[in-house]
This record gives sequence, C-alpha cells and structure tokens, in this order.
Amino acid sequence: MSTLISEIGEFALIDRMQAVLGAPSDADLLAGIADDAAVYRIGGGKVHVVTTDALIEAVHFDRTFMPMQHLGVKALSVNVSDIAAMNAVPRYATIALGLPNNVSVEQVEALYQGFQQAAAQYGCTIIGGDTTAARFLTISVTVIGEAREEQVVYRSGARPGDALCVTGDVGAAYAGLQVLLDQRRQLQEQGEDYEPDITDVQYVIQRQLAPTAQVNVIRDWAERGVQPTALIDVSDGVASEIHHLCAQGGVGARVYTASLPIAFETRDVADHFREDVDTYALFGGEDYELLFTMPPAVLDKLDPTTFVAIGEITTPETGVQLQTPEGTLVNLGAGGYQHFNDEPSS
Amino acid sequence: MSTLISEIGEFALIDRMQAVLGAPSDADLLAGIADDAAVYRIGGGKVHVVTTDALIEAVHFDRTFMPMQHLGVKALSVNVSDIAAMNAVPRYATIALGLPNNVSVEQVEALYQGFQQAAAQYGCTIIGGDTTAARFLTISVTVIGEAREEQVVYRSGARPGDALCVTGDVGAAYAGLQVLLDQRRQLQEQGEDYEPDITDVQYVIQRQLAPTAQVNVIRDWAERGVQPTALIDVSDGVASEIHHLCAQGGVGARVYTASLPIAFETRDVADHFREDVDTYALFGGEDYELLFTMPPAVLDKLDPTTFVAIGEITTPETGVQLQTPEGTLVNLGAGGYQHFNDEPSS
Repeated sequence: MSTLISEIGEFALIDRMQAVLGAPSDADLLAGIADDAAVYRIGGGKVHVVTTDALIEAVHFDRTFMPMQHLGVKALSVNVSDIAAMNAVPRYATIALGLPNNVSVEQVEALYQGFQQAAAQYGCTIIGGDTTAARFLTISVTVIGEAREEQVVYRSGARPGDALCVTGDVGAAYAGLQVLLDQRRQLQEQGEDYEPDITDVQYVIQRQLAPTAQVNVIRDWAERGVQPTALIDVSDGVASEIHHLCAQGGVGARVYTASLPIAFETRDVADHFREDVDTYALFGGEDYELLFTMPPAVLDKLDPTTFVAIGEITTPETGVQLQTPEGTLVNLGAGGYQHFNDEPSS
Repeated sequence: MSTLISEIGEFALIDRMQAVLGAPSDADLLAGIADDAAVYRIGGGKVHVVTTDALIEAVHFDRTFMPMQHLGVKALSVNVSDIAAMNAVPRYATIALGLPNNVSVEQVEALYQGFQQAAAQYGCTIIGGDTTAARFLTISVTVIGEAREEQVVYRSGARPGDALCVTGDVGAAYAGLQVLLDQRRQLQEQGEDYEPDITDVQYVIQRQLAPTAQVNVIRDWAERGVQPTALIDVSDGVASEIHHLCAQGGVGARVYTASLPIAFETRDVADHFREDVDTYALFGGEDYELLFTMPPAVLDKLDPTTFVAIGEITTPETGVQLQTPEGTLVNLGAGGYQHFNDEPSS
C-alpha cells in the first residue's frame, strides 16, 4: 500500500498517527495532540503547556522577502501564540536550526536577534537548541508555557449564548502576503530596476512577516480574574478556527460580517487587487490574534478596547452561519489558506 | 560582513548565538545551552530537563538505507540519550515533521511505529507535534525529562582519581555506517543485481540505524542510590566526549586502548575494510552509550556487567592521553565524525 498524504489530507493523517500511538497512559497528562498544545501537571496546582512548530524555507517563507530578524520573531511568535491559545504564558523555548551553507554567520545572528527580541517581549527564555546542516533553512521551535491547572482553557468549552470575540484586526497578514507575492512577480518581470513602494503597506507586511502573539491579553485576563470558555489562535483563518471551536464544543455559531475588525490598510490592499476584504478576514489566516468565547456578563469585565465581538455561539443545529450586512444568513465553510509558495500543505 | 559558518565552526557559531541571547534571567533555570540539555526547577525539589535535536534527510540519513520504523526509533533515541546524559529519565516528547510529497501515509505510520516503540521502551509519552510540507524529510524531536534536583549530573564534575567508564561497546555504529556506505557504493556500481549479505553485519547495522538510549542504566543507578560525578553520551565519539568532560571539569584523562570495549562484529568490519578498529571506537560516534566518571569506591556498588572502565581522570597538566598496549603515552585529539553524506556539519 502506498497512499499519498494529499489523498487523505492533514487531519486524517494526524488521526492515523494518533492511532499508531494509542491512548497515552501518563497520569499527569491532561491534554495531548488534539488541542493547540499539550498540558501536563508539574505539581503544586500548576501545569506546563507545550507546543512545537516548524518553519521551513520554500514552504512557509521565501528568504528573499523575509529579513532574518523578522523570521526569528515569527518563528517564536507562532509557537508562543499556541501557548497563549491555552490561556497560559510562555516560560522557555528551544530552537533546532537546519542551516544551508549559503546562510552566513551574520544572518544566523540576525535570526537570533529576532528570537531574542520576541523572547524578551513575551517574557520567555531561550534555553537550548540544536544546529545542523540542511539543504533548506529549517527552524523548529518548542515552547513550554505555564498556568494554574484551572486556568487552562481548551477549544471545547464554548456554550450557546456566549459571545464570539477576537482580540484584534484580521485579514492583515493575508493582505501582506498578497503584497509580497505581487512584489515578487514584479521583481521577476522587471528585474533589478523594480523598486517597490512599501510606505502604504508597511502595516500589512509587518503583520505577515513579524506577527505578535497576544501574551499581553493573557496577562490582562489573569489580572482581571476572567477567562474565556473556549480559546484558539487565528493561524489557519477565522472561519477555520470557528469551525474547530464549534466541532469540539458541540455548538454552532453566527458571525456578523459587518462586525469583523479589518484595518483600513487591509481594505486598501483588497481594493487594489479588486478582491473581497471579508474573504481576507475570514479565510486569510496567520493573524495570530486570539478567537475566544465568553458569556456577555463576563465580557463586561474586560477593557472594551482589547477585543471585538464578531458573533455569538448557538446551538449546533444551525452549524456555522454568516449574517451579511443585509441580514441574509449563509453557511460559512472552514475555507483554507495557502503557504507562501502554493505548496500542498500536508 | 558575510562570514561562512564553515570558516568559524559549530562551536564558535554557538558562542555567537549565546552572545546575542545574553545571560538568561530566569530564576528557576539551572542550566541552559552549554550542557546536553537545559534544566529548570518545577517545584517540589524536582527539575525538568529539556533537549531538542533534528534529523534531516540527506544530512543525517539516507532514506534508501533507513527503514522508516528505524528512523523513528533513532530520532527519539538520540534525544532521550541527551536526557539520560543528565542522569534524568524521559517523560514527554513532541515531534515536528517536515514531509516531502514522496513520503506515503504508510511510511509516516511506520515512522510513528518507531516513535511509539522507542517511547514505550523508554517509558515516555509522545504528547504533541506539528506536520508540514518540506522538500526533505525533517524530524525535529524535543524530549522533556525529569529528575530530583540533586540527582542531575553535569559534564563538569569529573575529579582526578575518578574512574572513566562507558556503559557498553563503542565503534559499532561507525562500523555499521561503513557497511551501509559500502553497500550503497556496490548498489551504484552493480545496480539491481546487487544483493547485500547482511547476516554477519546485522549487529553493527542495528547499532547505526536504531540505537538504544541507556535509560535502563539511569534507572539502575537511581535504585542503587549512586550517581556519577560527570556524565555525557557518546554521540560525536568517545575521544570528543572525553575532551568535553575534561574541558568543562578542568581535568585531564588517561585512556587505555586495551580497555576499549569493542564487539567482535565491529572488529570483523574494521578487518574487512583494513581499517584500525581503535579509530572506530575512539572517533566513530553515534554509539549513544554513556561515558561517565565515578570514584572507584562508588563504582564498586554497580553491577560490573553494566560498564567497562576505560581509563582514569588526572590533573589537567597532562591533557587527554592514550596509553597503548605497549605502554606508550600519546596525546589523544578530539577527532571528529562525518554525517552520512559527507555534508559539512555546521
């Protein structure tokens, strides 16, 4: 038997991996492969939360358009975002680097400046790593976070009547990707003469190249003594994450298109390419904002400038619906996203 | 400035990475990047020990000669070996996979069978992972181990008068590598007609393809209430590891060539290729045995079938010396090792 991964897709592949592993028997393990991160007790009422994610050249990024320092920021941020998505704060990170021989020592230093900049921002410490040769630049990061056991929020806790919220504007990272892909096309056509004007698109490029994990939100919630009922970070796209929350919580959701927080810079990019900005917002992905659900009464305890309510959790019968500004209800699919080079994501 | 990594070497590169990171400020962190694994307190007198290592196709292995299940065993074992090298036992592992599109679902399952086989053997649980597209098969593993704080053994504790010991035979993995490289050459010359006879070389091939981390030794020491003064695993080669222990402990060492434990299968391979088997044993690497130092009086508490004394720790003046069977003393260099494809290791 030889089955292509593309025939069955990523989620079926993960199911088959889990079938090989069987049920874990560790008594301290509270969550394994199914959530954003694994959770295990360390004693004293505390848990550690662990996640790992790799960024690979020619799949996740194009070195031509990715300054090494930004790459360092992004590699750490996408992992820290998974820790935040469990309502935990990051403590430690390890980094395994695969370095092709056309990466210079100075470039590795710039990459590490990015790691260190992000680690300092998030209050976490880089404690170890591995460096080896590789044909393509490969960055595998593991982050270990910490929380009290009762503080951990899973994907499964959303209840009908909860508000569905997001911590910041969405679609910007995808707009940034479109700008960078366009610049690459123009560079290929016009050659060295091409000088991109990036003044109007700096915000969206920044959101694509050096995203910020929402650790400050997690610390703010802890200080206020509130926590969401369900939580996930926006890596694959808002629609896809809503589907995860609904599937794992056994609920439905209604999303209001008019409520989606979209930056004017993102609208400008969509207009420029004559594309629909709501599509950017719903399916774009890589925003690394937090999508969360919370009863409206608890929501009142939050600083209203730190989130936007984009919908509500419903009973499961109606599935995930989108309400347009005209009041029409349509089914919202999970959609998808594409990697930088249009490689099949497996 | 653009400096090639090969100009300054791996250790200088790590120094420059550490310079960018600066001194860690986390109060619970006991050891960072310099040892086999990082160590941090989790409360209750316990520490966690974390290590990460990547295996990359065309650098660390050739898929033609590496059954996927063995590759899974090896990827986990090399990381667990770093945990054992701190006198800790493994608890949890995460795995980030980069999969080229010519790897089938069944091959991924075989890889996971290897992960699971090794995890069960070592008593650790695979708790999470990441799967993404890649041009070359890439396996990044992170293992989290556990120990009591006073139980952790660092590279730096060797003292003059300590015995220098190894937990099993050395040079076999390198002999296995020579056999596999020879088979590849013959396959390239003779094509499909070539049928390698592997009956006499199964042991050394197994040591190369599916090594075992010495977790049983760590559990045995804990039961006996003994611990070494210094400890490291044999990944780069016995000579190189001795140099690490001596540099970090501020001591010297004398090694007796005649005492090196070498399997007869390893001798046969060296004879076949008309090479010096002591070179295999001292510089071969990838044996994943433990090299440790212990006062002779403590050594008496161990089961004598579980280790071989190969030398003694001396004062630093004489450096690292090798005593030949004839009684001649020569300086022992750190030597080196090569990856499967003779890629420059960075």
